[in-house]
Amino acid sequence: FCLKSEASNCQPSEGVPLVKSIDELPQDNYGIPALSHITIAGSLLHGMKEVEVWLETIAPGSGTPIHRHSCEEVFVVLKGSGTLYLATNSHLEYPGQPQEFPFFANSTFHIPVNDAHQVWNTNQDEDLHFLVIISRPPIKAFIYNDWFMPHTAANLKFPIFWDEQCFQTPAKDEL
Amino acid sequence: FCLKSEASNCQPSEGVPLVKSIDELPQDNYGIPALSHITIAGSLLHGMKEVEVWLETIAPGSGTPIHRHSCEEVFVVLKGSGTLYLATNSHLEYPGQPQEFPFFANSTFHIPVNDAHQVWNTNQDEDLHFLVIISRPPIKAFIYNDWFMPHTAANLKFPIFWDEQCFQTPAKDEL
Ligand SMILES: [Zn+2]
Ligand SMILES: [Zn+2]
Repeated sequence: FCLKSEASNCQPSEGVPLVKSIDELPQDNYGIPALSHITIAGSLLHGMKEVEVWLETIAPGSGTPIHRHSCEEVFVVLKGSGTLYLATNSHLEYPGQPQEFPFFANSTFHIPVNDAHQVWNTNQDEDLHFLVIISRPPIKAFIYNDWFMPHTAANLKFPIFWDEQCFQTPAKDEL
Repeated sequence: FCLKSEASNCQPSEGVPLVKSIDELPQDNYGIPALSHITIAGSLLHGMKEVEVWLETIAPGSGTPIHRHSCEEVFVVLKGSGTLYLATNSHLEYPGQPQEFPFFANSTFHIPVNDAHQVWNTNQDEDLHFLVIISRPPIKAFIYNDWFMPHTAANLKFPIFWDEQCFQTPAKDEL
Protein backbone atom coordinates (compact mmCIF):
# COMPACT_ATOMS: atom_id res chain seq x y z
CA PHE A 1 0.00 0.00 0.00
CA CYS A 2 1.79 3.06 -1.24
CA LEU A 3 0.84 6.53 -0.13
CA LYS A 4 3.40 8.15 -2.30
CA SER A 5 0.98 9.92 -4.63
CA GLU A 6 -1.15 11.26 -1.79
CA ALA A 7 1.81 12.28 0.26
CA SER A 8 3.28 14.20 -2.61
CA ASN A 9 0.11 16.32 -2.61
CA CYS A 10 0.81 17.35 0.96
CA GLN A 11 4.05 19.23 0.75
CA PRO A 12 4.37 22.77 -0.53
CA SER A 13 6.19 22.13 -3.76
CA GLU A 14 8.02 24.24 -6.27
CA GLY A 15 5.85 22.84 -9.03
CA VAL A 16 2.54 24.29 -7.78
CA PRO A 17 1.49 27.30 -9.87
CA LEU A 18 0.80 30.52 -8.01
CA VAL A 19 -2.67 30.94 -9.55
CA LYS A 20 -4.75 27.80 -9.08
CA SER A 21 -8.13 26.96 -10.56
CA ILE A 22 -10.36 26.00 -7.63
CA ASP A 23 -12.13 23.46 -9.88
CA GLU A 24 -8.85 21.59 -10.29
CA LEU A 25 -7.90 21.43 -6.61
CA PRO A 26 -8.24 18.06 -4.84
CA GLN A 27 -11.80 17.53 -3.58
CA ASP A 28 -12.77 14.68 -1.29
CA ASN A 29 -15.18 13.67 1.48
CA TYR A 30 -12.35 12.28 3.63
CA GLY A 31 -14.59 9.46 4.79
CA ILE A 32 -17.50 11.72 5.77
CA PRO A 33 -20.32 10.87 3.31
CA ALA A 34 -22.22 14.18 3.42
CA LEU A 35 -19.10 16.36 3.01
CA SER A 36 -17.11 17.79 0.14
CA HIS A 37 -13.92 19.57 1.21
CA ILE A 38 -11.38 21.57 -0.81
CA THR A 39 -8.38 23.22 0.84
CA ILE A 40 -8.02 26.49 -1.11
CA ALA A 41 -4.97 27.67 0.83
CA GLY A 42 -3.52 25.33 3.41
CA SER A 43 -0.73 24.97 5.88
CA LEU A 44 0.28 21.48 4.84
CA LEU A 45 -0.64 21.78 1.17
CA HIS A 46 0.56 25.27 0.35
CA GLY A 47 2.86 26.34 3.16
CA MET A 48 0.51 28.88 4.75
CA LYS A 49 1.62 29.76 8.27
CA GLU A 50 -1.04 32.15 9.57
CA VAL A 51 -4.30 31.57 7.70
CA GLU A 52 -6.03 28.67 6.00
CA VAL A 53 -9.04 28.74 3.64
CA TRP A 54 -11.45 25.88 2.91
CA LEU A 55 -14.38 25.51 0.52
CA GLU A 56 -16.95 23.01 1.77
CA THR A 57 -20.31 21.58 0.79
CA ILE A 58 -22.56 19.78 3.26
CA ALA A 59 -25.59 17.75 2.17
CA PRO A 60 -29.06 18.36 3.68
CA GLY A 61 -29.51 16.95 7.19
CA SER A 62 -25.80 16.77 7.96
CA GLY A 63 -23.13 18.98 9.51
CA THR A 64 -19.93 19.28 11.49
CA PRO A 65 -19.28 17.51 14.77
CA ILE A 66 -19.76 19.54 17.96
CA HIS A 67 -16.29 20.98 18.52
CA ARG A 68 -14.18 23.84 19.84
CA HIS A 69 -10.83 25.38 18.94
CA SER A 70 -8.69 28.28 20.13
CA CYS A 71 -8.14 29.67 16.62
CA GLU A 72 -10.42 32.22 15.01
CA GLU A 73 -12.89 30.96 12.40
CA VAL A 74 -14.98 32.93 9.87
CA PHE A 75 -17.74 31.45 7.68
CA VAL A 76 -18.86 33.02 4.40
CA VAL A 77 -22.04 31.30 3.22
CA LEU A 78 -22.20 31.08 -0.57
CA LYS A 79 -25.30 28.92 -1.16
CA GLY A 80 -28.01 27.24 0.87
CA SER A 81 -28.89 27.86 4.49
CA GLY A 82 -28.46 26.25 7.87
CA THR A 83 -28.15 26.65 11.60
CA LEU A 84 -25.19 27.50 13.80
CA TYR A 85 -25.45 25.87 17.23
CA LEU A 86 -23.25 27.75 19.68
CA ALA A 87 -22.66 27.20 23.39
CA THR A 88 -21.09 30.24 24.99
CA ASN A 89 -20.85 28.66 28.43
CA SER A 90 -17.27 27.50 28.17
CA HIS A 91 -16.70 28.65 31.74
CA LEU A 92 -18.93 25.79 32.89
CA GLU A 93 -17.87 22.17 32.94
CA TYR A 94 -19.63 21.29 29.70
CA PRO A 95 -21.05 23.23 26.74
CA GLY A 96 -24.70 22.81 27.67
CA GLN A 97 -27.76 23.53 25.52
CA PRO A 98 -26.58 25.65 22.57
CA GLN A 99 -28.17 28.79 21.17
CA GLU A 100 -29.45 28.49 17.58
CA PHE A 101 -28.49 31.02 14.90
CA PRO A 102 -30.09 30.57 11.48
CA PHE A 103 -27.85 31.60 8.59
CA PHE A 104 -28.47 31.94 4.85
CA ALA A 105 -26.82 32.53 1.46
CA ASN A 106 -24.65 35.64 1.37
CA SER A 107 -24.34 35.80 5.14
CA THR A 108 -21.28 35.63 7.37
CA PHE A 109 -20.52 34.79 10.97
CA HIS A 110 -17.48 34.07 13.10
CA ILE A 111 -17.07 31.64 15.96
CA PRO A 112 -16.05 33.07 19.34
CA VAL A 113 -12.71 31.50 20.27
CA ASN A 114 -13.02 28.32 22.38
CA ASP A 115 -16.84 28.21 22.24
CA ALA A 116 -18.26 24.79 21.37
CA HIS A 117 -20.19 24.93 18.09
CA GLN A 118 -21.75 22.92 15.31
CA VAL A 119 -22.71 24.00 11.78
CA TRP A 120 -25.66 22.11 10.32
CA ASN A 121 -27.46 22.07 6.98
CA THR A 122 -31.03 22.31 8.26
CA ASN A 123 -32.38 23.00 4.77
CA GLN A 124 -33.86 19.74 3.46
CA ASP A 125 -33.81 20.91 -0.16
CA GLU A 126 -30.39 22.32 -0.84
CA ASP A 127 -26.70 21.71 -0.33
CA LEU A 128 -24.95 24.12 2.01
CA HIS A 129 -21.90 25.71 0.39
CA PHE A 130 -19.49 27.96 2.29
CA LEU A 131 -15.95 29.22 2.69
CA VAL A 132 -14.17 28.81 6.02
CA ILE A 133 -11.20 30.88 7.13
CA ILE A 134 -9.17 29.84 10.17
CA SER A 135 -6.13 31.33 11.86
CA ARG A 136 -3.04 29.50 13.16
CA PRO A 137 -3.23 26.40 10.94
CA PRO A 138 -3.21 23.45 11.00
CA ILE A 139 -6.38 23.35 13.11
CA LYS A 140 -6.44 21.64 16.48
CA ALA A 141 -10.11 20.78 17.11
CA PHE A 142 -11.59 19.21 20.24
CA ILE A 143 -14.66 17.10 19.47
CA TYR A 144 -17.64 16.44 21.76
CA ASN A 145 -20.04 13.49 21.54
CA ASP A 146 -22.87 15.70 22.82
CA TRP A 147 -23.49 19.11 24.39
CA PHE A 148 -23.25 17.72 27.93
CA MET A 149 -19.85 16.06 27.60
CA PRO A 150 -17.31 17.77 29.93
CA HIS A 151 -14.87 20.12 28.17
CA THR A 152 -12.02 18.06 29.63
CA ALA A 153 -13.36 14.89 27.97
CA ALA A 154 -13.55 16.34 24.43
CA ASN A 155 -11.22 14.50 22.07
CA LEU A 156 -8.44 16.27 20.21
CA LYS A 157 -8.82 15.48 16.49
CA PHE A 158 -5.37 16.25 15.15
CA PRO A 159 -4.61 16.18 12.36
CA ILE A 160 -8.12 17.09 11.16
CA PHE A 161 -9.72 14.70 8.65
CA TRP A 162 -8.41 16.36 5.48
CA ASP A 163 -4.90 16.80 6.87
CA GLU A 164 -4.54 13.17 7.93
CA GLN A 165 -2.81 11.77 4.90
CA CYS A 166 -0.28 14.57 4.98
CA PHE A 167 0.99 13.29 8.32
CA GLN A 168 1.53 9.78 7.06
CA THR A 169 5.02 8.88 5.98
CA PRO A 170 5.10 7.67 2.42
CA ALA A 171 5.88 3.96 2.26
CA LYS A 172 9.35 3.39 0.89
CA ASP A 173 9.61 1.55 -2.36
CA GLU A 174 11.00 -1.91 -1.64
CA LEU A 175 14.02 -2.87 -3.65
CA PHE B 1 -18.29 68.04 11.65
CA CYS B 2 -19.30 65.07 13.72
CA LEU B 3 -17.84 61.64 13.16
CA LYS B 4 -20.00 60.04 15.77
CA SER B 5 -22.06 57.89 13.43
CA GLU B 6 -19.04 56.63 11.51
CA ALA B 7 -17.01 56.06 14.64
CA SER B 8 -19.80 54.02 16.17
CA ASN B 9 -19.46 51.64 13.20
CA CYS B 10 -15.86 51.02 14.12
CA GLN B 11 -16.02 49.41 17.50
CA PRO B 12 -16.95 45.80 18.12
CA SER B 13 -20.30 46.32 19.77
CA GLU B 14 -22.67 44.19 21.74
CA GLY B 15 -25.49 45.13 19.39
CA VAL B 16 -24.01 43.51 16.26
CA PRO B 17 -25.78 40.23 15.46
CA LEU B 18 -23.63 37.13 15.12
CA VAL B 19 -24.99 36.26 11.65
CA LYS B 20 -24.74 39.24 9.32
CA SER B 21 -26.17 39.63 5.83
CA ILE B 22 -23.26 40.66 3.60
CA ASP B 23 -25.68 42.81 1.54
CA GLU B 24 -26.36 44.91 4.62
CA LEU B 25 -22.74 45.49 5.65
CA PRO B 26 -21.26 48.97 5.04
CA GLN B 27 -19.94 49.29 1.49
CA ASP B 28 -17.89 52.26 0.33
CA ASN B 29 -15.14 53.30 -2.10
CA TYR B 30 -13.21 55.12 0.65
CA GLY B 31 -12.25 57.84 -1.81
CA ILE B 32 -10.98 55.42 -4.49
CA PRO B 33 -13.40 55.78 -7.43
CA ALA B 34 -12.92 52.33 -9.01
CA LEU B 35 -13.26 50.41 -5.71
CA SER B 36 -16.04 48.90 -3.68
CA HIS B 37 -14.93 47.52 -0.32
CA ILE B 38 -16.83 45.57 2.35
CA THR B 39 -15.14 44.35 5.53
CA ILE B 40 -16.80 40.98 6.13
CA ALA B 41 -14.88 40.24 9.35
CA GLY B 42 -12.57 42.94 10.63
CA SER B 43 -10.25 43.78 13.45
CA LEU B 44 -11.62 47.24 14.10
CA LEU B 45 -15.21 46.52 13.11
CA HIS B 46 -15.75 43.09 14.61
CA GLY B 47 -12.94 42.49 17.06
CA MET B 48 -11.05 39.91 14.99
CA LYS B 49 -7.49 39.45 16.28
CA GLU B 50 -5.91 36.95 13.88
CA VAL B 51 -7.71 37.08 10.52
CA GLU B 52 -9.61 39.64 8.50
CA VAL B 53 -11.84 39.08 5.45
CA TRP B 54 -12.74 41.64 2.76
CA LEU B 55 -15.06 41.52 -0.24
CA GLU B 56 -13.96 43.88 -3.00
CA THR B 57 -14.96 44.92 -6.50
CA ILE B 58 -12.57 46.73 -8.85
CA ALA B 59 -13.74 48.37 -12.08
CA PRO B 60 -12.06 47.59 -15.44
CA GLY B 61 -8.69 49.29 -15.90
CA SER B 62 -8.05 49.87 -12.22
CA GLY B 63 -6.39 48.05 -9.33
CA THR B 64 -4.51 48.22 -6.06
CA PRO B 65 -1.41 50.34 -5.49
CA ILE B 66 1.95 48.57 -5.71
CA HIS B 67 2.49 47.50 -2.09
CA ARG B 68 4.01 44.99 0.29
CA HIS B 69 3.13 43.67 3.76
CA SER B 70 4.50 41.10 6.16
CA CYS B 71 1.13 39.45 6.75
CA GLU B 72 -0.19 36.56 4.69
CA GLU B 73 -2.81 37.34 2.03
CA VAL B 74 -5.08 34.98 0.07
CA PHE B 75 -7.30 35.98 -2.87
CA VAL B 76 -10.39 34.02 -3.92
CA VAL B 77 -11.61 35.35 -7.27
CA LEU B 78 -15.40 35.21 -7.54
CA LYS B 79 -16.06 37.02 -10.84
CA GLY B 80 -14.09 38.63 -13.65
CA SER B 81 -10.42 38.27 -14.35
CA GLY B 82 -7.22 40.22 -14.00
CA THR B 83 -3.47 40.18 -13.57
CA LEU B 84 -1.30 39.81 -10.49
CA TYR B 85 1.97 41.72 -10.82
CA LEU B 86 4.50 40.27 -8.39
CA ALA B 87 8.13 41.21 -7.75
CA THR B 88 9.94 38.49 -5.88
CA ASN B 89 13.22 40.39 -5.72
CA SER B 90 12.76 41.81 -2.25
CA HIS B 91 16.41 41.03 -1.51
CA LEU B 92 17.35 43.79 -3.95
CA GLU B 93 17.05 47.48 -3.22
CA TYR B 94 13.79 47.91 -5.14
CA PRO B 95 11.05 45.58 -6.43
CA GLY B 96 12.07 45.76 -10.10
CA GLN B 97 10.09 44.59 -13.11
CA PRO B 98 7.31 42.31 -11.82
CA GLN B 99 6.23 38.94 -13.14
CA GLU B 100 2.69 38.80 -14.53
CA PHE B 101 0.22 36.13 -13.41
CA PRO B 102 -3.19 36.13 -15.13
CA PHE B 103 -6.06 35.02 -12.87
CA PHE B 104 -9.72 34.29 -13.57
CA ALA B 105 -13.09 33.57 -11.97
CA ASN B 106 -12.98 30.65 -9.51
CA SER B 107 -9.22 30.85 -9.09
CA THR B 108 -7.12 31.50 -6.01
CA PHE B 109 -3.63 32.74 -5.24
CA HIS B 110 -1.67 33.92 -2.23
CA ILE B 111 0.93 36.62 -1.97
CA PRO B 112 4.39 35.61 -0.74
CA VAL B 113 5.08 37.55 2.47
CA ASN B 114 6.90 40.88 1.91
CA ASP B 115 6.86 40.62 -1.89
CA ALA B 116 5.75 43.82 -3.67
CA HIS B 117 2.58 43.22 -5.65
CA GLN B 118 -0.34 44.81 -7.44
CA VAL B 119 -3.71 43.32 -8.38
CA TRP B 120 -5.24 44.80 -11.52
CA ASN B 121 -8.50 44.37 -13.40
CA THR B 122 -7.07 43.94 -16.91
CA ASN B 123 -10.45 42.79 -18.28
CA GLN B 124 -11.99 45.76 -20.07
CA ASP B 125 -15.49 44.30 -20.03
CA GLU B 126 -16.16 43.14 -16.50
CA ASP B 127 -15.83 44.13 -12.88
CA LEU B 128 -13.35 42.10 -10.85
CA HIS B 129 -14.92 40.65 -7.70
CA PHE B 130 -12.92 38.80 -5.06
CA LEU B 131 -12.51 37.90 -1.41
CA VAL B 132 -9.29 38.78 0.40
CA ILE B 133 -8.10 37.08 3.57
CA ILE B 134 -5.23 38.59 5.57
CA SER B 135 -3.54 37.54 8.79
CA ARG B 136 -2.52 39.76 11.73
CA PRO B 137 -4.99 42.60 11.20
CA PRO B 138 -5.18 45.55 10.96
CA ILE B 139 -3.00 45.55 7.84
CA LYS B 140 0.23 47.55 7.71
CA ALA B 141 0.90 48.13 3.99
CA PHE B 142 3.92 49.85 2.44
CA ILE B 143 3.06 51.58 -0.82
CA TYR B 144 5.38 52.17 -3.80
CA ASN B 145 4.98 54.86 -6.47
CA ASP B 146 6.55 52.54 -9.05
CA TRP B 147 8.44 49.25 -9.31
CA PHE B 148 11.82 50.95 -9.11
CA MET B 149 11.25 52.88 -5.88
CA PRO B 150 13.61 51.63 -3.14
CA HIS B 151 11.99 49.36 -0.52
CA THR B 152 13.17 51.80 2.15
CA ALA B 153 11.28 54.65 0.47
CA ALA B 154 7.90 52.90 0.33
CA ASN B 155 5.31 54.70 2.43
CA LEU B 156 3.52 53.02 5.31
CA LYS B 157 -0.23 53.44 4.77
CA PHE B 158 -1.61 52.86 8.24
CA PRO B 159 -4.42 52.74 8.91
CA ILE B 160 -5.42 51.42 5.50
CA PHE B 161 -8.07 53.42 3.60
CA TRP B 162 -11.14 51.60 4.98
CA ASP B 163 -9.83 51.60 8.54
CA GLU B 164 -9.11 55.32 8.61
CA GLN B 165 -12.29 56.59 10.13
CA CYS B 166 -12.06 54.04 12.90
CA PHE B 167 -8.88 55.69 14.11
CA GLN B 168 -10.45 59.13 14.32
CA THR B 169 -11.69 60.18 17.71
CA PRO B 170 -15.35 61.08 17.59
CA ALA B 171 -15.90 64.79 18.09
CA LYS B 172 -17.38 65.48 21.49
CA ASP B 173 -20.81 67.00 21.55
CA GLU B 174 -20.48 70.57 22.66
CA LEU B 175 -22.71 71.57 25.52
ZN1 LIG C 1 -15.10 25.34 14.04
ZN1 LIG D 1 -1.58 42.90 -0.66
